Amino acid sequence: MENLENSTDCKETVSPLNNSGSILNSTDSRRDGKAMGFVLVHAGAGYHSESKAKEYKHVCKRACQRAVDRLRAGGMALEAVTAALIELEDSPFTNAGTGSNLNLSGEIECDASIMDGKSLNYGAVGALSGIKNPVLVARRLLSETQKGKLSAGRIPPCFLVGRGAEQWAISHGIPACTTEKMTTKFSLSAYKRNKRKMELAELVETKRRRQSSGHENDFGCLEPVGDIMVEGEVNNSACLDTVGAVVVDGEGNVAAAVSSGGLAMKHPGRVGQAAHFGCGCWAENARDVSLYSTAVSTSGSGEHLIRTMLARECSTAMQAETAHQALLEAMQNKFISSPFLAGEDCVLGGVIVLRCCTCEEDQRSEDMQALLVEFLWSHTTESMCVGYMSAQDSKARTHISRLPPGAVAGQSLAIEGGVCRLGAASD
Amino acid sequence: MENLENSTDCKETVSPLNNSGSILNSTDSRRDGKAMGFVLVHAGAGYHSESKAKEYKHVCKRACQRAVDRLRAGGMALEAVTAALIELEDSPFTNAGTGSNLNLSGEIECDASIMDGKSLNYGAVGALSGIKNPVLVARRLLSETQKGKLSAGRIPPCFLVGRGAEQWAISHGIPACTTEKMTTKFSLSAYKRNKRKMELAELVETKRRRQSSGHENDFGCLEPVGDIMVEGEVNNSACLDTVGAVVVDGEGNVAAAVSSGGLAMKHPGRVGQAAHFGCGCWAENARDVSLYSTAVSTSGSGEHLIRTMLARECSTAMQAETAHQALLEAMQNKFISSPFLAGEDCVLGGVIVLRCCTCEEDQRSEDMQALLVEFLWSHTTESMCVGYMSAQDSKARTHISRLPPGAVAGQSLAIEGGVCRLGAASD
Repeated sequence: MENLENSTDCKETVSPLNNSGSILNSTDSRRDGKAMGFVLVHAGAGYHSESKAKEYKHVCKRACQRAVDRLRAGGMALEAVTAALIELEDSPFTNAGTGSNLNLSGEIECDASIMDGKSLNYGAVGALSGIKNPVLVARRLLSETQKGKLSAGRIPPCFLVGRGAEQWAISHGIPACTTEKMTTKFSLSAYKRNKRKMELAELVETKRRRQSSGHENDFGCLEPVGDIMVEGEVNNSACLDTVGAVVVDGEGNVAAAVSSGGLAMKHPGRVGQAAHFGCGCWAENARDVSLYSTAVSTSGSGEHLIRTMLARECSTAMQAETAHQALLEAMQNKFISSPFLAGEDCVLGGVIVLRCCTCEEDQRSEDMQALLVEFLWSHTTESMCVGYMSAQDSKARTHISRLPPGAVAGQSLAIEGGVCRLGAASD
Repeated sequence: MENLENSTDCKETVSPLNNSGSILNSTDSRRDGKAMGFVLVHAGAGYHSESKAKEYKHVCKRACQRAVDRLRAGGMALEAVTAALIELEDSPFTNAGTGSNLNLSGEIECDASIMDGKSLNYGAVGALSGIKNPVLVARRLLSETQKGKLSAGRIPPCFLVGRGAEQWAISHGIPACTTEKMTTKFSLSAYKRNKRKMELAELVETKRRRQSSGHENDFGCLEPVGDIMVEGEVNNSACLDTVGAVVVDGEGNVAAAVSSGGLAMKHPGRVGQAAHFGCGCWAENARDVSLYSTAVSTSGSGEHLIRTMLARECSTAMQAETAHQALLEAMQNKFISSPFLAGEDCVLGGVIVLRCCTCEEDQRSEDMQALLVEFLWSHTTESMCVGYMSAQDSKARTHISRLPPGAVAGQSLAIEGGVCRLGAASD
């Protein structure tokens, strides 16, 4: 177990979960007196092979850098989170934007959403084809909402899907892109492999059904042919690595975003949690009864994340005193053991969470208010790739979090995180 | 103020809101010892002219009858609520299924969702064209989810949109229907009127902008031409009348559903609350910490209902002791004054709510357990049309609830309801 850096001055510490995670060092809290803010990104909860770890970390690092660049240029949380997402979508290694999973018909259909903790506005797109950066469409929907009503008193949409979303995006000047350009060698070969697996699995299933009705006792004879195929799932490493980010800016505003190519071999028109309000991302500035500003972005099995409304549940939970304990309980009670997933024995997903508050009791900061930022991630999948950086840091830190040895994916969880103090007076 | 019927034996009474509503008599509670259950339907929160009131009431009556027919035939809540929705969708007067609002391109794109309080399963479709009864697709998605995984371990979808949803529906044997057949004379003429209004409004807006930049002081000269057009909204009476239903069956299971053609002149691909988990409908059987089973269906401005997640919020609120007070506070604090709609001065919507519990303290029922059903509706729109019926009733009751005189739509609310005891031993 590593301890939190001594340089951080914390109101509360985030303690590690004994058997499934460890605390990373918090980021440096050097003060430059100019830019403040913090970004935490994920390149998906799923399975990240050692061989690809470097690529995933690299894209997380770049995404953090893009967000911090925006913060340093005076951008707000919403702009910074968008910048991070564009970088994550543009990577051919992530399942979002370029390199997204192909659906049953061999097409790319993306989901994305974004939420602004200050205005609580929200924009989302589902099953969107032909647009290079789906997050830009979600972002534009959000900002159009803030402009007020359309002609003749019509309320502007916050959620568009399919061909209509594509047309809207193009008419608003957002760059289009052909499916061919967004398809990578990797996504195409994964599609072909998965298609073969599915065809074999369906063949085995048909034979099994036929034999089971005619010769019930011969059931076992299919095992050698079909066991791996029936049990083997479609490419898991590719199917869960949705991307997302959460940001707090120097004014304490939070924002969150998420983007996904969806499940591999999904039915055309299927929309997952990344486009679903309350499920893919959540951001809510502190107000009235809420002491903390919170931002959440999720990844994993879309249907499970929808039915458990995990992003909002985690955000709500984070108003409890201890961030780590609150997230642990939320992941356990609102996800793994959720009554909304009562029939499921394998619940796969992950979240990144950021919560922050101003340090009012701090006597040392005289010219600016300090922000205490707690950042955590938790997942029930084999692994989750994250990166984080404060606007004062010279570079991002990245990490692939893995379930501890012996833990069963979908039934147990890992939880890790750190704490960072922004803008405190120098020691 | 009317009092609740003396024949009902209530644990708690639903008291009227002094200045904006009144309590209707509860339904008869004749016991037949065979079928139990209760249905509450709505034909939308919006504006229902006196001239069309008869039609709206009539369709609500038929929808209640269809649901009760299913209950009497031994159907569960989920089947009954589907039956009610089909009737509501098939009416040319409602903005759902046949007779739906046309979008900007003159097409019909429907949203619908359904939730089962027993399993907490859920199915939804968004921006769906070419299917006569969108609720049937949502229902089928829900039941396919319950069958477990698809081939090669794929998780079945709970939410499909657009062309993919249409293809899925047809491949599952759900009847298709051309846009022409689903378009009514009324929806077509409303479309033409709205299109003209929009064009004029946009013309006025362009002129205004041009004049405002060139001759700022001439701003006023447009008023006589443009005032009505700019201020006049697209056909309101047609644009908000989403339909929905909530049902409890004899075993105490609840279900809820909602279906909508969406806003008139919406952008193609726009998805409203009717397809959004937690926003269009909610159903949750009593369990553990929840004393009451609750079911909710909403209607109104889709974007406002999404951002406030009104169906789920109302359901959560209904665990409080007094149903009427809980709904009143939810509509006030989680809708009209919601921080999620901070910039909106006109928040239009309505809900129907049903909550029930078993009457354990009842000494008179010996051979069967009695259910206490509280049913309520509340709206911030000018009016809302509802119908309700228990399986013991010979016919449905219908009602058009209106804001009290002087109340401002979008800023104040009406709340009404009743209570009904099912299956109690006869006196």
